[in-house]
Parts: sequence; C-alpha cells; structure tokens
Amino acid sequence: MAGMKRIGILTGGGDCPGLNAVVRAVSKTAMAEYGATIIGIEDGFEGLVAGSGRELCNADVSGIINLGGTILGTSNKGDPWHFPVAGADGPEIHDCSVQAMEHYRRWQLDCLVTVGGDGTMNISHRLAGLGANVVGVPKTIDNDLAATDLTFGHDTAVFVATEAIDRLHTTASAHHRVMVIEVMGRYAGWIALTAGLAGGADIILIPEIPFSWEAVYRKVIERSRHGKRFSIVCVAEGAKCPDVGEVVKSYDAKRTDAKQLGGVGDVVARRVAEGTGLETRVTVLGHLLRGGSPTPFDRVLATRFGVLAAHLAGRGQYGFMAALHGSVVEPVPIADAVSRLKIVTHDHEYVQVARAVGTSFGDA
Amino acid sequence: MAGMKRIGILTGGGDCPGLNAVVRAVSKTAMAEYGATIIGIEDGFEGLVAGSGRELCNADVSGIINLGGTILGTSNKGDPWHFPVAGADGPEIHDCSVQAMEHYRRWQLDCLVTVGGDGTMNISHRLAGLGANVVGVPKTIDNDLAATDLTFGHDTAVFVATEAIDRLHTTASAHHRVMVIEVMGRYAGWIALTAGLAGGADIILIPEIPFSWEAVYRKVIERSRHGKRFSIVCVAEGAKCPDVGEVVKSYDAKRTDAKQLGGVGDVVARRVAEGTGLETRVTVLGHLLRGGSPTPFDRVLATRFGVLAAHLAGRGQYGFMAALHGSVVEPVPIADAVSRLKIVTHDHEYVQVARAVGTSFGDA
Amino acid sequence: MAGMKRIGILTGGGDCPGLNAVVRAVSKTAMAEYGATIIGIEDGFEGLVAGSGRELCNADVSGIINLGGTILGTSNKGDPWHFPVAGADGPEIHDCSVQAMEHYRRWQLDCLVTVGGDGTMNISHRLAGLGANVVGVPKTIDNDLAATDLTFGHDTAVFVATEAIDRLHTTASAHHRVMVIEVMGRYAGWIALTAGLAGGADIILIPEIPFSWEAVYRKVIERSRHGKRFSIVCVAEGAKCPDVGEVVKSYDAKRTDAKQLGGVGDVVARRVAEGTGLETRVTVLGHLLRGGSPTPFDRVLATRFGVLAAHLAGRGQYGFMAALHGSVVEPVPIADAVSRLKIVTHDHEYVQVARAVGTSFGDA
Amino acid sequence: MAGMKRIGILTGGGDCPGLNAVVRAVSKTAMAEYGATIIGIEDGFEGLVAGSGRELCNADVSGIINLGGTILGTSNKGDPWHFPVAGADGPEIHDCSVQAMEHYRRWQLDCLVTVGGDGTMNISHRLAGLGANVVGVPKTIDNDLAATDLTFGHDTAVFVATEAIDRLHTTASAHHRVMVIEVMGRYAGWIALTAGLAGGADIILIPEIPFSWEAVYRKVIERSRHGKRFSIVCVAEGAKCPDVGEVVKSYDAKRTDAKQLGGVGDVVARRVAEGTGLETRVTVLGHLLRGGSPTPFDRVLATRFGVLAAHLAGRGQYGFMAALHGSVVEPVPIADAVSRLKIVTHDHEYVQVARAVGTSFGDA
Repeated sequence: MAGMKRIGILTGGGDCPGLNAVVRAVSKTAMAEYGATIIGIEDGFEGLVAGSGRELCNADVSGIINLGGTILGTSNKGDPWHFPVAGADGPEIHDCSVQAMEHYRRWQLDCLVTVGGDGTMNISHRLAGLGANVVGVPKTIDNDLAATDLTFGHDTAVFVATEAIDRLHTTASAHHRVMVIEVMGRYAGWIALTAGLAGGADIILIPEIPFSWEAVYRKVIERSRHGKRFSIVCVAEGAKCPDVGEVVKSYDAKRTDAKQLGGVGDVVARRVAEGTGLETRVTVLGHLLRGGSPTPFDRVLATRFGVLAAHLAGRGQYGFMAALHGSVVEPVPIADAVSRLKIVTHDHEYVQVARAVGTSFGDA
Repeated sequence: MAGMKRIGILTGGGDCPGLNAVVRAVSKTAMAEYGATIIGIEDGFEGLVAGSGRELCNADVSGIINLGGTILGTSNKGDPWHFPVAGADGPEIHDCSVQAMEHYRRWQLDCLVTVGGDGTMNISHRLAGLGANVVGVPKTIDNDLAATDLTFGHDTAVFVATEAIDRLHTTASAHHRVMVIEVMGRYAGWIALTAGLAGGADIILIPEIPFSWEAVYRKVIERSRHGKRFSIVCVAEGAKCPDVGEVVKSYDAKRTDAKQLGGVGDVVARRVAEGTGLETRVTVLGHLLRGGSPTPFDRVLATRFGVLAAHLAGRGQYGFMAALHGSVVEPVPIADAVSRLKIVTHDHEYVQVARAVGTSFGDA
Repeated sequence: MAGMKRIGILTGGGDCPGLNAVVRAVSKTAMAEYGATIIGIEDGFEGLVAGSGRELCNADVSGIINLGGTILGTSNKGDPWHFPVAGADGPEIHDCSVQAMEHYRRWQLDCLVTVGGDGTMNISHRLAGLGANVVGVPKTIDNDLAATDLTFGHDTAVFVATEAIDRLHTTASAHHRVMVIEVMGRYAGWIALTAGLAGGADIILIPEIPFSWEAVYRKVIERSRHGKRFSIVCVAEGAKCPDVGEVVKSYDAKRTDAKQLGGVGDVVARRVAEGTGLETRVTVLGHLLRGGSPTPFDRVLATRFGVLAAHLAGRGQYGFMAALHGSVVEPVPIADAVSRLKIVTHDHEYVQVARAVGTSFGDA
Repeated sequence: MAGMKRIGILTGGGDCPGLNAVVRAVSKTAMAEYGATIIGIEDGFEGLVAGSGRELCNADVSGIINLGGTILGTSNKGDPWHFPVAGADGPEIHDCSVQAMEHYRRWQLDCLVTVGGDGTMNISHRLAGLGANVVGVPKTIDNDLAATDLTFGHDTAVFVATEAIDRLHTTASAHHRVMVIEVMGRYAGWIALTAGLAGGADIILIPEIPFSWEAVYRKVIERSRHGKRFSIVCVAEGAKCPDVGEVVKSYDAKRTDAKQLGGVGDVVARRVAEGTGLETRVTVLGHLLRGGSPTPFDRVLATRFGVLAAHLAGRGQYGFMAALHGSVVEPVPIADAVSRLKIVTHDHEYVQVARAVGTSFGDA
C-alpha cells in the first residue's frame, strides 16, 4: 500500500485512567482503516526529545482497554523548550525542541497524536508551529479543559472518591464525629463537587467558592444538634482556607524545607476539631484517584476520542483535538483548546443541585 | 406556611439503581425549598390504587443515595386500568383508575411525581387526563427512552456487565475457548453495545442488527487462527437468532410449559460450539444488572432529575418529565415522552466506533 | 555460584485467581535465596511435552501478584500419558511421557514446580516415578482437595458469587419473585455453601445434600407468606435435581448434540416457577468465578505456598506439596494428596451455621 | 414457652465491618433455636448505663449481613466505671456500674452478649464480677487479640488497603516517584503487613520492627537504580519513626493544640523526599478501613462467632468468648482473653514470606 501513513503517539502529563484505551483505539483504527504504522513514543515528550520509541503491533494494543496507567509511559517533565539535561552541577534547562523535531522526521511521521492536558496541548501547538502535524486527545482527571464538556479519567476519579465517601458513611455508628476527605483538584473543584454530590457529603469545599470557618462549624454543629451522628466534609486539595491560604502537600526533594506537614485536609480537620469540639478524622486519597482500571464510561469516551483522532490523522486533518460537546465527539482546533480552563462557577447546575439537597459550600 | 404543597411520589416498573437517589432529591428539595409535605406511595401504582402510602420525613430519605432498589417498593403489575383483583376463580383484571384518583384526592395531593419507564409515563399521562397533576422522572436501565439522552441506571448496568466481561478476559490463559455473556436488553441493545465496547468484546449481538451464524463463526475462527486464545461474545437477551427467532428466558408460572430451558446465551453458545468445534461457556447476568449501588454517574443524574422534578412540582409546572439533552437537564412534556423508543441505529457512532476497533456485529 | 539450581514451573488445569502470585513467589524466592534459574513452562504439561518454555527474569514476575489468569498459560488437556496428537483423521491420543521427561532433562531441571489441582498432582506423582523431582502447589477454586484446609482461588470465587447475591438482594423492591443463582462446583458445594452463607441465601442446593422439590417450594412459599418479597436460591452446578439428575451445561463441540439447553439453574428456576406460581429469574455466573484479580486473602495464601515451594525446591526436598493446616503452611507428600477429595459433610460446621440462621438445604 | 431466655446484645468500641452479621446471627439463632427474646442495646455500654435499648424482631435483623457499621450503634466512651456525666463545669467522670447492672436487671436479661475488642472484653469480665452473665464475641480490625487466631473486620480492612495499593501501582507510568500509604494499626502492624504482602509493597513499616531512615532510603534508591519507576511504602499509623517517635494524627478537640499537622505517612514522605531526592506522594486511608460492606470471609467468620455465642447464651455457658483456632470456632474463657495482645513477631511467617519476595522492613 503506497503512501501508508506513519503515526506517532505519546501520552503526556500525569497518569489518567483511560490512556491505554486511547492508545488502543488510535492504533487499531489507524492500522485497520488506514493501513498505518504506529510508533509508540515513550514517556511523553521526553521520548520525542530522546528518540525513544518503537513500532506498536496489534498484540501490543490488545487487551489493554481496562488497564490503568499507560503502556507508553508518561512524564511531567517533558517540555522540549524547557528540558532538563544533565550538566556538571546537576540538571540544566535547555531548549531541545530541535531534537524533538529531528526525531519526528527521523521516524518519518506523517502525524503525531498527543494525549494530554493543557500543557500537552500547548506543546503540541508549538510543535505544529515548527512543522509537525499534530492531532490532540484531551486528558485530565480534573475535567478542567474548557474546549471539551468532559474528558476521560474524571469519571473514574469521581468513582473512587465516591466509593471512599460511601465507606466513611458506613462508619456512622459511633457518636459525633467529623470525617474530612481530601481529593485532588488544585485549581478546579469538579472532583470534590461531583463526588460530594454523589456521596452525599454534607460540606464541599472547593477552590472556586470562598468559605468561612464559621459557616463550616455552623453546619457541623447544626447537624449534630439534629441528631445526625456525623458530618462528612469533602475538600479539594486546592481549596483556600481562610487565614491560611492555599496548602500544598507535595513532598518534593527541592521544596520540602519550607513546607509544613499535612495538607488542606489536615488543616480543615484541626480547625473543625477546635471550632466544634468534635473529634475529627482525615482521609487523604491522593494518587488513588489517578490509578486503577478506568470505568466503562471513561473507556468508551477514551475509545471514541481515539477513533476520531485516528480518522483525523488518517485523513490528514491536522491541528485538531477531539472534544465532546453534548453527546457528540467532534474536532476542535488545538489552538482554541490551549489555556482555557473550565472552573466551577457559583451558579453551575451541580452547585445549585447540591445546595437543593442540603449541601453546604461553607459560604453562608 | 399557608398553601404548603402536598406531593406524592411513587416508583413504577422494574428495579433500577438510582431510584432512591431520586426519592431523596425530590423529597429534600421539595421540603427545604417549598415547605412541601411528601407522601411516599408504596409499590408504584399498586399503592395508589390500594391507598398505601405514608408521609416521608427527612430521616427517611437521608443516607439512601447509594442504596439499590427503592425504599418505596415498586411493581410491574400496577396499571390502574388493568389491575389484578382477587376474584372467585383467581385474579380478575379490573379498571381501578377511579380508586387511584380517589386516593390522589384523599391524600390531598397537589402533584404526583412518578418515576418510571415508558409504561409509567403512559399511565401518568392518562392520570393527568383524569385531573391529576403529574411530574415525571424517566427511568430505564435499557436507556431506550427517546425523550431523554440518558437515564440513570444504565451506567450502573453497563458497569456491572463490563466488570463481568473483564473477569472473563482474565481467564484467557486456557486455549481456544468462546465465552458467551448474556445481558439485559429485550428491545434495545444499548447495554450490550456499550458494555461490549467498554469490555472489548469481540462480537456484539443486539436486537437491532440481524446477524448470521456464519459471520459469527468466521470471526471466532479468524481470531483463533491469529493466535488469540479466546473470543468473547456479548449478546443482548433480545437478539434474534437466525432460524430460532427471539428466545425469551422467563420462568413464569403461567408461561413456562411452552418454554424451552435456557435463553439466547445458551442458544448462541451451543451453535458456536457446533459451528466452530471450540469449547464454549455461558454467563447469564440477568437481574445482576438491576441490583446494587448506583454508580456516581447515575446518582448525580438521578439527583439532577429529582431536583428538577421537585422544582416543577413546587412551581406548579405540571405535565412535564425531566430529561437530559446534551449536558442540560430540562423539562419535556410527558405527552411527547410516551411510547417513543430509542433503539440502536445501524450507523450510530457507538456502532461505528466498535467496528473501527475490530468488533463484529455478526452481520458481515 | 556453582551448583545453582534450575527450577521449572508450570500451571495446570483451569484458570484460578492467584496463579500469578505463586509464579511470582516461587521465582523471586528461588532467585534471591538460592540463586536459581527459573524456566517458565507454557500451557501446563502441554509445554513440557512440546518443549515450550523460557527463562523468567525478575521483570517477568514483577507486578503480577494482582493479575488474574496465568502469565505461563494453562491447559486442561495436557496429561502426557493421554496426549492429543494431530493424526490423519483428527487428533489421536498418544503416550507422550517420554517427550515430557526429555524436555525435563534437556532444560537440565533440578526440580519441577507444578501448580494445579488433583489432576495436576496425579501427573506430577507419575512424573516423579519416571525420575523427575517435583514439588507441588495445590490449586482449586472449588476447595475440594483433602490434603489442604484451603487453596487459593476459592476466596475469590466466593467473593464474586457473594457480590452477585448482594446485587440480587437489592432488587427486592418488586413483589414475590424467586432469584436463582448458579455457581461453580461440580462435585463439591463449597462455593455455593460459603457464598450462600455470606450472601444470606435462603436456599442452598449442593451436590452433597439431596433435596426435594417440595421442600424447596415450601421454603419459598413460607417466606412469601411471611411478607418477604423474594427468595434467593444459590445452586451449585453439580446439585442433583430430583427426577432430573445431574444437569451438565457445557457446550462442547463433540458433546452438544445430546445436551439440552440450559443448566441446573434453569431447571431449578422452571420447577420453582411451576411449583410455587411465582415469577423466577436466573443468573448463571459460570467462568466469572475463575477470572479477575485475586482477593488479598488468596494472594497471601498463594504467596505463602509459593515461598514454601521455592524452599522445598531449593533445599532438595522433593515429592512434597505445600498445604495449609490451621494457620500453618507445611509440606505434605504429593502421594498422599492425590485423589482424596474433600466434600461437604452433612454435619459440617458451615452447614450447621447456615441452618442456625434459617437457611434451607431443601432437605426437610 | 416457659423459661424463654432474654438475651441482651451490644456492640462496643470502634466500627468494624461484620458487626451486623454478628447481631443477625446471634438474634436469628437465639430466636429460632432457643425461643429467646433479644434486647438490642444502643451505643455499646452507653446504652446499658442509660437504659436505651429495644426488642429486636426478625425483620430488624434480616438483610443486614452485608451492611457496614452496626444497627445498634457503638461508642468508644462507654466504660461504666469511667463514665462521662454532664456536670456544672462540663463532663465529669463517674462510676456508673450500678446503673449498668440496674438496667441489666430491669430488662430481666439472662445473658448479655458483648461484641467488641480488648476494652469491651475487659468491661464484660468486670460486669460478670458484679453478677451479669456475659458471652463475648471478639472484634478488632487490627487483629491484635491473642485469644483468637483471627477476628472479623480484619480481612475487610486488608481488602480496602490492598485495593488502594493496587491503584497506586497502576500509576507507575511516570518516573521515579515514591508512594507512601498510611494504614491503621497503632500497636500492631497486621494490616500493614498483610496488605503490604498482598499488594506487593516494597517497604513495610510497622510498630513492631524498628527501622532506620538509611535502610528505607537505600531500598528506594536501589529500586530506582534497577530501573523500577517507583516504590511503594506501606506504613502503619503506629510505626515509630527514628528521631521522631510515634506520630499520632488525631484531631481531637481537647488535644489538638499540642499536635503537629499530618501523621506518620507525612513524616515518612517528607523524610524520603529529603533523603532520596525523589518526589513523594502520600495517601492516608484512615477510617476507610473501618467502613463499607464486610468481605464474605468476614461475614462468614462473624456469623460463625454469632451462632456460637447464641448457643453459649442459650445453653447457659456464660463467661466465654467465641474464638477461632485453626479452622475451629470454639469458646475460651473471657478472663483469659483480656489484655493479651498479639503483635507481629520478628520471625512471624508473614514477615519471612515478605522478605523472601523482596520486601524490606527498613531494618537492614
């Protein structure tokens, strides 16, 4: 078959359930419908800069739709324009975009499919400026990309968080206790909001809605007075505590000295204990939300995105990203998708629905 | 509060994960925002005819968002116009719509919220004709209601079916076997299609797409030749087997004599064994798909429907059903919602996506 | 390291959750503590006869403790003394034990670790008679090996079956229905008994306890009279139906003609529908019980067995099988382990406990 | 039935999956086999002191085998000899054992079945000294009671912790990261040990085995050098950090001022980040381990304990506690069961098995 396409694929940014479903769908569709050769690039843009990749065959992408993680590896540190290179005194930051494009050409790629979040789309857009043909697939467990109604990974994260809230609910046999559960969401509170709604949390604290300690105490005490044996507080890691500000819990080699121990969940728990006189317990889910098998919903969405991306690559419609609008999966220009975050608005339907069933956001 | 509303609520038709989330959302919202009194009617329209119901308080509807089943009970046999009444020679079918309206009035209902599928909406529409104010909430695990993009319960059914397909996948260590899995879906194949897509089934057989045994055998044998150790066939209970027709497996007291043993899954398994010479195994999920805790997705959708229904009832906007269109929950006239089924079309995106990743529908 | 051991390992018989945990534990322990080389033999004794195997490195056995299936493959058809060989008129059965021993020697094995059930232990014992050094690890989801209190895989099978019974329980909202659930267990009813106990089944039917239809009907009707909305019948596939005998549902190419459709679950469902007048539904779990990730209990037991097997192989204590007695894992002679099945006795504590909480075995 | 027994039952101490299975088994067995009347006492010994309890009927204890929590409520603060009573200046501690015995007599109890851990058994023993007939059922998710091989709740806690470790494993796609997971276990490390074994943790830190930071760093760095993309550290909340000592994370109204934020998981994470230069993430499971539906294993064990307790109460064999020894459930004197903790010994088989498969305890 003359003119068979050569398509590279990489997964950038943090882990997200559904990445393998995308890799499978892109590869199977592009192979079967366009006779394409697929080059799997390792560890996101790191592999593009370093030239590490391999041809994927059908067996490589079979039986992986339900696997967490990504068979290609991923990396948070792969911006080709700010790439860490080993130097005499430790890593130095270099512009390695030339090397990235060199490997794009050496692999004779007709197109590069990039699966990732805002950062990945941004880099993809810039690579397009250097002459690469790119097709994007959006990914974020936080669901904070404005260009698409939903991304895969989010439903799984909400599933895990909700299951945890359910477990906390069933320990309601003992008296007067407050359970604080901290979930991911540094800038957008979608996970806390949706899981809090699904799990029936009493209080939801998210970055977008400022809260006061007094309103939180009041809700807890009011429940206690009404004979409710406990309250559940679902807090996004990026929620901004009054008097305290943002609390980032990340134990990073170069940044730990300045950091206190514990995260926003711990701060909330201590303050609620002090403010209400009730015993308080904390659960911090952390990376649990990024792991494990994707839900069927996420697998289907990831597969739909992947099939569209394969068609875009196969037909030469470059520069687009797959997106979900309503119930339709369709292409949007990557340029439009970059840097437009979607955060929770104060009058979003989910916020109104949560308030209607009695949930407090700590703001009144 | 003068003029406080009195709102009845019932759940009709078969069980469906998310019913309790609706009951909770309707009740909490109507109580908090409209000061309403809620009458929980037992066992669907049976309770309306029989006058069995009770006032629900806040404690009744707390902590139930994650429970399967329905705290109100439900029934398949509650059409007031064709109601089974004990007679001298066994049950006789009577028109009991007068009794139903009598209880509607005796409870002094301002509105009746009915949660159910096509049958329930139909009855609701006819009760409206007799003077009842009704608000509908759609429910079907099959997702076959045309008036709404999605209903709650479907995601949970797909989740359970997909988890089962995953388990079958991991028994792939033994040679040359065919696993047949039968799921619900008498008229619409959405569950088989979506779970088959999410679970990576090799063959999906649904009522809407006629299939031939030869095409099924061919796909299985082709996989076996390519070194795949097994094939998974996901079949909807309503799939129409060539030469056999529809196979209904329901062991009902009055109807069993005429029935063979086994259902469509058994028929497919035997034919595939004969046609391919391979060992075949069957799993029949049956009512597993209707049971258990709803997924977070279904809880959120059920809660959104319930909150809207409470607002419609509270504001006096009767005759409407909650529906999802794209990402918006909005009212549609119940009259429009009745009797319009949504089945899988041959060119539906999911069918195309499934074919793109190599799934066969037994039709080529 | 002079005299480093060479240890072969194979997994025989049907799939069973925990096989990979054994392979991992044997390999890691034998490599680290005895400097052994591990040869992974493919597809059970088939691979020994055919000479298909490969050296396993640390990476091969890392990260597999939670995987279902077996990375080595398995086979039900691998008895070297009755081995199917392609002949002019289809497969012929040959004695291939010489080939098996030939590969044992060609791989220069000091010991062969076999993981399997009664059949596998039997073959292992006979290979020992031909000069092979063997160490056994027992495996059966049915838990019917007399030489060990428990085997891995059983807890997982019970887990899946119990989860299914739980789901059926939550569809209790509709009236007067009987749910029949068929689980594995051709000769021993341990899965049905244990899952029935854990799931609160109302009736448990197992091969070891003869039952009468009348007793089954009576229990169902009695519950219906006491206002219970439904009954759950948990039936082992090998339960012997009165007037009907054993019903084997296996769609095998060469054996299907003589078979009816459906299995024991279908027979029970139809009879209960006829005998009680109630609607009846069937769920057939089939191979779901063999698939999926092992429970932690099974992983730990499999790991304990594997570590002991590695020590036995490493120390040259051949001819033993790992076994659990009380809370101790210890070696027993393979010769003793062969062909002694453990079935449910009528006065087993579990039977008494089930009766104490109101479960019927259909025998009174 | 003259002389029908009156049996009280209470659940003491913290929540534990399986409590409802015990309540059900005790009640059903005692009602059916001894015609007993069951008094369910609320909130552990608090209800005995306060006289709050009610007769349980069959419907109360049906369908609860799979529920987390306890339908009776429980309490950590119910020692009758040190009972908090509201005083002028806040709660005062009184001896209320007289009131407890008064209610025992007013309810005309023949026997009191107490379900709880070490504290509960201790109080039960002292109540026996005042003339109460008591039968005990052991409970602890930590599995630290010496008088029984196992208690229910532990398997569920291990299940939840292992599932979490599995999820962390699948986020292994990104480079060089350390995942710390903190589980319950203040004095005994059984949960961390067993879940670490089942989940394949690389490092397990428990209270019983002193560890050094250097050994922990060394293991992490060694794995990183061998190309492993990450390490998982499973740490019991009571593990004693060198230079730091025990870190108790409990946000209690009266005790918070002296406390730092964060728990042992945070301390380990920060130190590992500093000591290895790698990014580190923390998950703190907290009360997730006490919540949710019990595993089938725990339900069966709880039911066996409950049935035995009912027989002991019914037959008048007071002063005993149900215990598991090997595979046998049998009575042991409560007096012997009190205050004998079972901790992990350095040469316990599980420790040896974990070391054999390459796990480090940070001690070498």
